[in-house]
Amino acid sequence: MNFNIIRTARAILNVTNLEESRRFYVNALGFVETESDDTHIYLRGLEEHVHHSLVLKKSDHPSVEVISYKVFSEEDLEALSVFFNKKGLKTKWLEPGVQHAIGRTLRVQDVSGLPVEFFAKMETVDRLLQRYDLYKGAKVQRIDHFNCAVTDVEKAYNFYIKELGFACSEYTTADDDKIWAAWLHRKPTVHDVAFMNGVGPRLHHIGFWLSDPMSVIHTCDVLASIGYGTSIERGPGRHGLSNAFFLYLRDPDGHRIELYNGDYLTSDPDFKPVRWDIDDPMRQTFWGHAAPDCWFNEASTVLDVNTGKVVDTSDPLLEKKKPSIII
Amino acid sequence: MNFNIIRTARAILNVTNLEESRRFYVNALGFVETESDDTHIYLRGLEEHVHHSLVLKKSDHPSVEVISYKVFSEEDLEALSVFFNKKGLKTKWLEPGVQHAIGRTLRVQDVSGLPVEFFAKMETVDRLLQRYDLYKGAKVQRIDHFNCAVTDVEKAYNFYIKELGFACSEYTTADDDKIWAAWLHRKPTVHDVAFMNGVGPRLHHIGFWLSDPMSVIHTCDVLASIGYGTSIERGPGRHGLSNAFFLYLRDPDGHRIELYNGDYLTSDPDFKPVRWDIDDPMRQTFWGHAAPDCWFNEASTVLDVNTGKVVDTSDPLLEKKKPSIII
Amino acid sequence: MNFNIIRTARAILNVTNLEESRRFYVNALGFVETESDDTHIYLRGLEEHVHHSLVLKKSDHPSVEVISYKVFSEEDLEALSVFFNKKGLKTKWLEPGVQHAIGRTLRVQDVSGLPVEFFAKMETVDRLLQRYDLYKGAKVQRIDHFNCAVTDVEKAYNFYIKELGFACSEYTTADDDKIWAAWLHRKPTVHDVAFMNGVGPRLHHIGFWLSDPMSVIHTCDVLASIGYGTSIERGPGRHGLSNAFFLYLRDPDGHRIELYNGDYLTSDPDFKPVRWDIDDPMRQTFWGHAAPDCWFNEASTVLDVNTGKVVDTSDPLLEKKKPSIII
Amino acid sequence: MNFNIIRTARAILNVTNLEESRRFYVNALGFVETESDDTHIYLRGLEEHVHHSLVLKKSDHPSVEVISYKVFSEEDLEALSVFFNKKGLKTKWLEPGVQHAIGRTLRVQDVSGLPVEFFAKMETVDRLLQRYDLYKGAKVQRIDHFNCAVTDVEKAYNFYIKELGFACSEYTTADDDKIWAAWLHRKPTVHDVAFMNGVGPRLHHIGFWLSDPMSVIHTCDVLASIGYGTSIERGPGRHGLSNAFFLYLRDPDGHRIELYNGDYLTSDPDFKPVRWDIDDPMRQTFWGHAAPDCWFNEASTVLDVNTGKVVDTSDPLLEKKKPSIII
Repeated sequence: MNFNIIRTARAILNVTNLEESRRFYVNALGFVETESDDTHIYLRGLEEHVHHSLVLKKSDHPSVEVISYKVFSEEDLEALSVFFNKKGLKTKWLEPGVQHAIGRTLRVQDVSGLPVEFFAKMETVDRLLQRYDLYKGAKVQRIDHFNCAVTDVEKAYNFYIKELGFACSEYTTADDDKIWAAWLHRKPTVHDVAFMNGVGPRLHHIGFWLSDPMSVIHTCDVLASIGYGTSIERGPGRHGLSNAFFLYLRDPDGHRIELYNGDYLTSDPDFKPVRWDIDDPMRQTFWGHAAPDCWFNEASTVLDVNTGKVVDTSDPLLEKKKPSIII
Repeated sequence: MNFNIIRTARAILNVTNLEESRRFYVNALGFVETESDDTHIYLRGLEEHVHHSLVLKKSDHPSVEVISYKVFSEEDLEALSVFFNKKGLKTKWLEPGVQHAIGRTLRVQDVSGLPVEFFAKMETVDRLLQRYDLYKGAKVQRIDHFNCAVTDVEKAYNFYIKELGFACSEYTTADDDKIWAAWLHRKPTVHDVAFMNGVGPRLHHIGFWLSDPMSVIHTCDVLASIGYGTSIERGPGRHGLSNAFFLYLRDPDGHRIELYNGDYLTSDPDFKPVRWDIDDPMRQTFWGHAAPDCWFNEASTVLDVNTGKVVDTSDPLLEKKKPSIII
Repeated sequence: MNFNIIRTARAILNVTNLEESRRFYVNALGFVETESDDTHIYLRGLEEHVHHSLVLKKSDHPSVEVISYKVFSEEDLEALSVFFNKKGLKTKWLEPGVQHAIGRTLRVQDVSGLPVEFFAKMETVDRLLQRYDLYKGAKVQRIDHFNCAVTDVEKAYNFYIKELGFACSEYTTADDDKIWAAWLHRKPTVHDVAFMNGVGPRLHHIGFWLSDPMSVIHTCDVLASIGYGTSIERGPGRHGLSNAFFLYLRDPDGHRIELYNGDYLTSDPDFKPVRWDIDDPMRQTFWGHAAPDCWFNEASTVLDVNTGKVVDTSDPLLEKKKPSIII
Repeated sequence: MNFNIIRTARAILNVTNLEESRRFYVNALGFVETESDDTHIYLRGLEEHVHHSLVLKKSDHPSVEVISYKVFSEEDLEALSVFFNKKGLKTKWLEPGVQHAIGRTLRVQDVSGLPVEFFAKMETVDRLLQRYDLYKGAKVQRIDHFNCAVTDVEKAYNFYIKELGFACSEYTTADDDKIWAAWLHRKPTVHDVAFMNGVGPRLHHIGFWLSDPMSVIHTCDVLASIGYGTSIERGPGRHGLSNAFFLYLRDPDGHRIELYNGDYLTSDPDFKPVRWDIDDPMRQTFWGHAAPDCWFNEASTVLDVNTGKVVDTSDPLLEKKKPSIII
């Protein structure tokens, strides 16, 4: 493989009410609103020097239009196009100007049916990392990763590692040693994308990184203060797997956002992925709290990159059992 | 009333295995072990300049021997003795020397049947507040309060306020405006003692104060690291009532310990107690997490100050309903 | 003495530009502005349920009009009036209505020449402790103490302890065992007022309490972000004496504000004050940073309670030496 | 250039007393001691899965034997050897077994005269990230970067960027637009190595990353508690450049260690380096504290990779002025 994929870059979430979404993401969580128009809000974190890492798009129904990765150069886009076409997977080019603030993009339906986008260029803006006077809510720093429910984790795992050059940091195996979930990265953090066995393809959550653990606590307090207590779905808690100090929220359309702090450096090529057995109690939420059923069962539907229609979901290959200890 | 009660001072918990208790309280939670013998461990927090605030006593069965308040002077003890005798409540003197490290004490069975002790003097020791090299686990700073399940909260409320001079910071009322729970203090924090409607008399928990919210998070991490994950019963979370950032633990004998940070100053005599309706969603765990059933149903049995036998419990006067929102 | 003084309650600072002061205290530090008119801004902390704890008053020159203590009842005011008159110290009554939002007040020039005020009643307002959405800047919680430079610390010490019923938590002695500085309290924290040997009478600083140590760090970041970097005079650091994690700021008129977190409970009547030798290295800034000269030399002038004129200052009785280790 | 250098990996510091060094690094700062013998102590941070990131080596005089980078493969070592030989710079191979716990290494004297080492393999050990029970002192997580004083920053800058493939995150220019200091990275953090204009070649400090800002504060408290207050040279404070929340310590031999939290992701190839003018007040310590002279003037001498003798230092090309605002 010769694709220099840099990192998780952005997602486009279809939402039903832009004002309600703004209230949640900007007012409550403290995302920076770079720009907006009648049908889009472009958001970024405080350390991000690019135009946006999250697009909220007005739509009749909530769904995920696409999840995006930044690549090194235009040549990588070309190579990816050739590759996906050769694999018989749907592709679609969006020329510069079609999407606001970013350059030419390649959209594909990946091996799991997820709508994925690659681009090399995005407009840059001022990084607000040291504008502490603007910090509020969760003080979101940057986008970190996607977590996707797919029907065949091993297929996704092999595709992303062997074909797209991702590395695995941690993974979970079921009884028969099949991979039940896997955390994969390009940038040297725990992950840019995770795949979990489940009804798919669906987007389980988008992870955003916070600068310190107290920001997780403060987020809960702020959300509760202004009537968003019910948006807190799970946490705060510590993941055994990945060591993240996490908080899971549901936005006004039900899209799931993870805010977290923690992680570790995964730069070394000889780093051995950490294997967890699905029933190993050490894998569970580190402090022993069970995840609520909704966290296990609910996720965002995704769209077809060509038709824009909802991609049908299927049951997973492995038993859809809910480990008491899932993360 | 003319009793100058200073503050919540200590508790004596009967435990079945001193070594297991030491491992939990000293090794894991970081209590300072001032002294111990074959049947007692005397513990204190890092800022405490007194010999102990918690006594673990070897016993065949877990129970609460007594909960104690420090009073201003020996004269207060005398006045309390006269008062409790006049009220027809059991009293018992323990002369200096009978109990290690503290002076003359008066024990009583209070109006709810709880074993309560008053004393004016305890040996002093070095305060370890600035021995940061000794900080570990929860870095417990000091004892703060008792929370007791009683069958008649209004009776306890009136007794402690009108007779013993406590003040109320916050309280909860049930449908009929009856007091369902109340937080009472002598020192100007939210409470020295709280009474909740329930099967009683029992001790629900002892609250210890931590220096900062991160210590609550670190406690969870340390407990999980060394196999005490199942000791975490509830939290971390924020109480709406009292604003405490809390964590509830169960010690090896099931005694419940609250570790928390937060609180506010309640020094003003014209401070109006905060009233919460039991079904007011604003009263609940501030972030909206429900308390587990065990937190609601389980508590430590208490002993008779004269016979040393377990005090029988009764059902509460008010409906024993579990508010989804109890704190 | 029979004065039930509750706690440090408020100060009136004369400032030269209300808008600049508002920008500093409200916009940058996050004080809550309860109310204001053409010549006053009334500020309070997030946990305060009283109308204000700081009054900024438009004036041609910066100075301190008065520092105030809350007392238990009107009877305490009467008793204090009799007492101060008997001592031959200046007194002045301000009847209800004369000062906005507070009841009858007694103003006196204390034994050190400081303008001091006592009152029993202040209008109450909503406590904003759980309005986390409003938290910004330093997220100031409540007023805590005054620190005053006086020429004769022992005289002030004896007056406040023996006559006004304060207790001493910690003190510093010079070579000849004279008291060089003392920390005195009514509420059970380290202090409501401290007296330090120096050119006096002057107000060295007003201390406000923050909810956690990270708020001190965040304050520095926010101040620097919006051009107030030069307002940071000293810290963040840890005081050996009192264990406060502190930050000293100078407001636009040069008034010094301490923001801090830390402290410990001083409720016990048999608590022995901690004695520090002025040259004991353990007394110094705990981490070993020296205080800048301006911190040692500069302080706010105070006014005569009757004439409203600046009170002349004198050199202190003890050598005005600057300990490398002063706090 | 075709060298896949992964990241800053370790340093070998010569120290005069292993026991004193152990007391400082292990007991006080909380480094994990992986292994030791009569003449070496091998240390690592809590998240590190490799044998060590710091070697303390018994010697008569303090100095820096070498600073090391991990490369992707043995082929990178060969290519680097060819490259450095071609450049006429000293090289030296250390075969596997010569140095404990690491594979074949190439040592070179770089373009600034610094002793630099490259290796691909190091023994792995258990990562202790989730052994929170072992966390103490600074709870050091991992090595992050080297900061070196060199006489010709532009030469070093060009060599590391154009020849070795580093990227620049931030840099400082002097009056004549010459580069006065530069922060360069391979892994996508602010830096793996920084070069500052000064008497060189010398090692200014080694930077270690902490998991959260409170760990910086706690480090100060712990150091002060056990008599290491004088080891605190500078901070805690916030760097404008890099946004690090920093603390600089001097070890018992005077080697400087930076402990910090902060940083941001520098993964994007089109990220534009941030330029700071040396006299731009925005570049200074973010909160406005000046660095002490010793921080500016003192640094560790380095050794010749072949002779093991101290490398002579020279004055820098640019004026050796001390910006009030240096970081």
